[in-house]
Amino acid sequence: MPGKLKTAVMGATGYSGQELTRLLLRHPLLDKPILLHRPTEGSASNLAEIAPSFSGNGGYHLQTMTWMELKRQNVELLFLATPHDASRTLVPEAICEGLRVIDLSGAWRLKQAQHRAIYEFEDKDAATAADLTAIAVYGLPELHHETIANAALVANPGCFATSIILGLAPLLRAGFVDEEHGVVSDSKSGVSGAGKEPNSRTHFVSVADNLSAYAVFNHRHVGEIVEQLRLDTGKLIFTPHLLPIPRGILSTIYLRLNRETKPTEVEACFREFYDGKPWVRVFGTPNLPQIQFSLHTNYCDLGFCLNEDGRRLVLISCLDNLLKGAAGQAVQNMNLMYGWCEKEGLN
Amino acid sequence: MPGKLKTAVMGATGYSGQELTRLLLRHPLLDKPILLHRPTEGSASNLAEIAPSFSGNGGYHLQTMTWMELKRQNVELLFLATPHDASRTLVPEAICEGLRVIDLSGAWRLKQAQHRAIYEFEDKDAATAADLTAIAVYGLPELHHETIANAALVANPGCFATSIILGLAPLLRAGFVDEEHGVVSDSKSGVSGAGKEPNSRTHFVSVADNLSAYAVFNHRHVGEIVEQLRLDTGKLIFTPHLLPIPRGILSTIYLRLNRETKPTEVEACFREFYDGKPWVRVFGTPNLPQIQFSLHTNYCDLGFCLNEDGRRLVLISCLDNLLKGAAGQAVQNMNLMYGWCEKEGLN
Amino acid sequence: MPGKLKTAVMGATGYSGQELTRLLLRHPLLDKPILLHRPTEGSASNLAEIAPSFSGNGGYHLQTMTWMELKRQNVELLFLATPHDASRTLVPEAICEGLRVIDLSGAWRLKQAQHRAIYEFEDKDAATAADLTAIAVYGLPELHHETIANAALVANPGCFATSIILGLAPLLRAGFVDEEHGVVSDSKSGVSGAGKEPNSRTHFVSVADNLSAYAVFNHRHVGEIVEQLRLDTGKLIFTPHLLPIPRGILSTIYLRLNRETKPTEVEACFREFYDGKPWVRVFGTPNLPQIQFSLHTNYCDLGFCLNEDGRRLVLISCLDNLLKGAAGQAVQNMNLMYGWCEKEGLN
Amino acid sequence: MPGKLKTAVMGATGYSGQELTRLLLRHPLLDKPILLHRPTEGSASNLAEIAPSFSGNGGYHLQTMTWMELKRQNVELLFLATPHDASRTLVPEAICEGLRVIDLSGAWRLKQAQHRAIYEFEDKDAATAADLTAIAVYGLPELHHETIANAALVANPGCFATSIILGLAPLLRAGFVDEEHGVVSDSKSGVSGAGKEPNSRTHFVSVADNLSAYAVFNHRHVGEIVEQLRLDTGKLIFTPHLLPIPRGILSTIYLRLNRETKPTEVEACFREFYDGKPWVRVFGTPNLPQIQFSLHTNYCDLGFCLNEDGRRLVLISCLDNLLKGAAGQAVQNMNLMYGWCEKEGLN
Repeated sequence: MPGKLKTAVMGATGYSGQELTRLLLRHPLLDKPILLHRPTEGSASNLAEIAPSFSGNGGYHLQTMTWMELKRQNVELLFLATPHDASRTLVPEAICEGLRVIDLSGAWRLKQAQHRAIYEFEDKDAATAADLTAIAVYGLPELHHETIANAALVANPGCFATSIILGLAPLLRAGFVDEEHGVVSDSKSGVSGAGKEPNSRTHFVSVADNLSAYAVFNHRHVGEIVEQLRLDTGKLIFTPHLLPIPRGILSTIYLRLNRETKPTEVEACFREFYDGKPWVRVFGTPNLPQIQFSLHTNYCDLGFCLNEDGRRLVLISCLDNLLKGAAGQAVQNMNLMYGWCEKEGLN
Repeated sequence: MPGKLKTAVMGATGYSGQELTRLLLRHPLLDKPILLHRPTEGSASNLAEIAPSFSGNGGYHLQTMTWMELKRQNVELLFLATPHDASRTLVPEAICEGLRVIDLSGAWRLKQAQHRAIYEFEDKDAATAADLTAIAVYGLPELHHETIANAALVANPGCFATSIILGLAPLLRAGFVDEEHGVVSDSKSGVSGAGKEPNSRTHFVSVADNLSAYAVFNHRHVGEIVEQLRLDTGKLIFTPHLLPIPRGILSTIYLRLNRETKPTEVEACFREFYDGKPWVRVFGTPNLPQIQFSLHTNYCDLGFCLNEDGRRLVLISCLDNLLKGAAGQAVQNMNLMYGWCEKEGLN
Repeated sequence: MPGKLKTAVMGATGYSGQELTRLLLRHPLLDKPILLHRPTEGSASNLAEIAPSFSGNGGYHLQTMTWMELKRQNVELLFLATPHDASRTLVPEAICEGLRVIDLSGAWRLKQAQHRAIYEFEDKDAATAADLTAIAVYGLPELHHETIANAALVANPGCFATSIILGLAPLLRAGFVDEEHGVVSDSKSGVSGAGKEPNSRTHFVSVADNLSAYAVFNHRHVGEIVEQLRLDTGKLIFTPHLLPIPRGILSTIYLRLNRETKPTEVEACFREFYDGKPWVRVFGTPNLPQIQFSLHTNYCDLGFCLNEDGRRLVLISCLDNLLKGAAGQAVQNMNLMYGWCEKEGLN
Repeated sequence: MPGKLKTAVMGATGYSGQELTRLLLRHPLLDKPILLHRPTEGSASNLAEIAPSFSGNGGYHLQTMTWMELKRQNVELLFLATPHDASRTLVPEAICEGLRVIDLSGAWRLKQAQHRAIYEFEDKDAATAADLTAIAVYGLPELHHETIANAALVANPGCFATSIILGLAPLLRAGFVDEEHGVVSDSKSGVSGAGKEPNSRTHFVSVADNLSAYAVFNHRHVGEIVEQLRLDTGKLIFTPHLLPIPRGILSTIYLRLNRETKPTEVEACFREFYDGKPWVRVFGTPNLPQIQFSLHTNYCDLGFCLNEDGRRLVLISCLDNLLKGAAGQAVQNMNLMYGWCEKEGLN
């Protein structure tokens, strides 16, 4: 169909990649996306072989393709739903070929080397990597609307990071938070966030009827959270937990306010910040978000409880880790990059 | 069987009551327990009608019985797995009849009137209620071993409270904790903790694939936690969450230490405190408890992560809410009350 | 928006009603649907109060409305997601007012009085009820495409019935099935199929980690299955089971073929029957549908295993009970009734 | 402790092996069992490293041991919770060393070569294998009580097979069943039945919110079922399904009776057959077993619905695949082998 944007997805077989493919396939302003093999992904020639929910409709071809062919087919935008290392290698090539890129991995999210260290990237070309790091835009539309619009490279945020940053940003920017006291985010995620690789941790019997904390003081998302919120690393404790559900995140965030505050002030701060932002819903007291409410949507839901002392605040932030936490946010970013309505293709 | 202790259970049809009945039936030092109807429980004459897992073995008779008959049958110990209000009424009568009582409800756990207020008890005889409040022993064996041994009335702790108190008591008593900074317990519980009453909150579709916070700043267990830990109420934030699992609790507890501390010191503090206490397991770094590990056991499992700053500590405390959080702890209390090995009947 | 169809939904707060509302809200050829209170549903004025996933977007008003007002607002099509009894009362009135109706209940599905008996309908006006029974069209598009197109009253099929009928119809019509031998459908459904009413059967703790059979030889859907398939009641055994999942149905159907047959013949029979039918996907041997594959879609997925004896056949039929088993099928029926593409609004 | 039986377990780290270890540890007539490494199992020296629920109590040592040492330590009975191939190799050696063996694998269950073919055993010594096949006793105590008592080698039955054989044996032996018509068992199992190996099929996201059929007409347990029931293979259809639960089996079994029969006759047949058999519970009409009822017990629960035609019968058979379907049954067999009460150590 002439006039429609041509896109390609690398990594369509992972959980985020499947969800992304689903969204792109029904986005009204796109051509049917080209689905690309990662070099190591084996030989399936159709997405339905790997994910039978994509059966029917003539199937969805998985291709191995060169940059030249992508250009010849007029692909303008490349989505990478690939592991961090793969994205670190592929992005420089894609940008060099003139493609715009939305990368769902953590490869390009971090500006500060100290935070990137945890990823142990091995860049072939350090200068290019530094350049790309400089131009990469952190793809959280509620914070970086304008820079995303013109970005060549959008680093799509982490799922936990999205839930925490969207919960804290309004209060921090408005100066409500006693940063010295520190912030705690006790976050819980469904298993799709741990990826598709079968291992003893993702075995059904290990997860069902269970809850476990992991990566305490040591999760990769800490870097992007503190960078985006301009927090001192020492002022954030982030503890992820693995929930016995396929998808969804709930972050319970604990903080102290600088001064005695009324619930209406807190609510007003959120409502003002997210005014005109279609993908954040603010819940008024005493209603609190639950994981179910935002599941299978692109919403991040925010609610809170303020202690009667007016100082101690508990925030609840929920989202679907595969949508607002990954594929949905990627589409939202694409909408901004092409000047479309932020909600296009996401209802 | 002569020489064996005669016990009775009121409320055997609830989740805790069923679990308690299961334990009492296989306890080697007990006669088969007498299972008593609550007056309002309807007309089932056999526990298997309500809980078919109790089928076989000739069934388990549910009886309506007077105090006089309980005495005539030489019942010495009465377990109450009844709602708070029912326990508040029944305990004075039972104590007056010379029975020893282990009450699984929250009716007699609190010493301070300000904390009891949340229960809205309506005592017929305030003087007796005050007397019983004075003699009631908080049935946490790891803290009150000696007083439980001689108690006429044991108030079995709440499930969340058990997980939090056992996590915090060693460090608080050893003076490690910066109490001024405050403590956060982000706790998650399986649905059996919410009781057997069907309502929109406990409907399968409301719970499955979900997580929700509730009773923020407002849960009944806060009172017993702060009383037992001698904490200022304002220094504890406790947020319970409802997990999509039938049973099990995990509390993630956040606190700041008074001074820079080594992980070995923290571990030593726990190991010393729980030395000789068979039902608490301390996990050494970097191992952390998970809900599964203590499920269907009477263990409370404790583990921790200390930040490299030596100050910020994350504790993980896990238990089975129906065992160490209710029925198992009740049996442990009985064992102490009758001078038996604390592990008797609990393996 | 002029030119768009005006619809109303009664019963938008139930599970099927919510799903239906979600579909209607994003259907491109419809005005925003009017959401109607059932008389007994209490006083919520906004769907988001009952189902917070409908928060945002200005909310979805719940109204009490007279037939006159519905007409004044030019509503042409009424969806009933109401209990059987309510539908039995409402449909005669709605038809009399000139509305077209799609009824998701079992009230108008059955032609034969012997099958209706199980519902114990009490019709005020038996003659009208008989007339409506005569004109009601069983809304299974893959079987009754033409009559649905012109129907005033569409009786949307039951969820189990849809899965079983779509599995059996092609083979029965082509004469493959040894009807004398009998057919068994062992069906399993998620809990949303049991409705929103909290009771001891739908309590999370009763369902989780469990599986149970119910209504053996006695389920209401038997009537519509045998009527639609023109089977003798005595030749179908249908056993529903309650799965510990929120939604989804899998029917495992056992039958004997009349003569030794090849897998390719069976597959060809299915493919021919469903050629051009967009909402049934046929899986070729050895692939079998799973509940996940059709979840959150309007597909009914069919697959099979033929024994090497060429006679004994196991069919697997999967669908989402809230979509192809209820709301999605209702929208598919609407599409046919208004001459639109069968897939409109369902991707 | 003198006088207590010395046992050893090889394969204690698998799901069945862990459950077996748990049972043996609390069996009153046994010494603490010796836990043996399988050669390929790596280097963990303590069971708690692999299964942290075994933490505490000084730990449970995992040893590599020679036959000579086992003898020197006076081990009399060896449990094998090993894969089929490993059991096929280990059993001849163990028997040769004079040990009695209870093998939980499928290695020695089948008498007929045609059924063994599916396992593709490669015996080093065919003559010995034939001898052992001849003396191996199928360890279903309700059928083979006497021969188990004196067996040197007990082949512990498969979990599905146990549920189906116990359901069908009474009716078949009493001549109630129309065998010509054929029997269908639609069986559903929790994921622990699929073993501990992580793969895409056992990944949490693949199982949760799902149900799938597998190995239709092709499951290994068919052989032992038809051998034990003396059924013609062509007269049994067995379809296993994977349930989104950790453990538990429910088999829904469909059959036709030879003549018009009353429910009381069916019930009497079951009650007579299982009279004095402590680990089978018969549910009277209209009660049906559910998976939950037998979970964490050694019971097999049986119930049924007879159609009003007196001919078509639906049986429901439930058990815990890790207990009556594996480790519990192994202990029951041991009890018989040593002349103890069949219930010893299993309550």
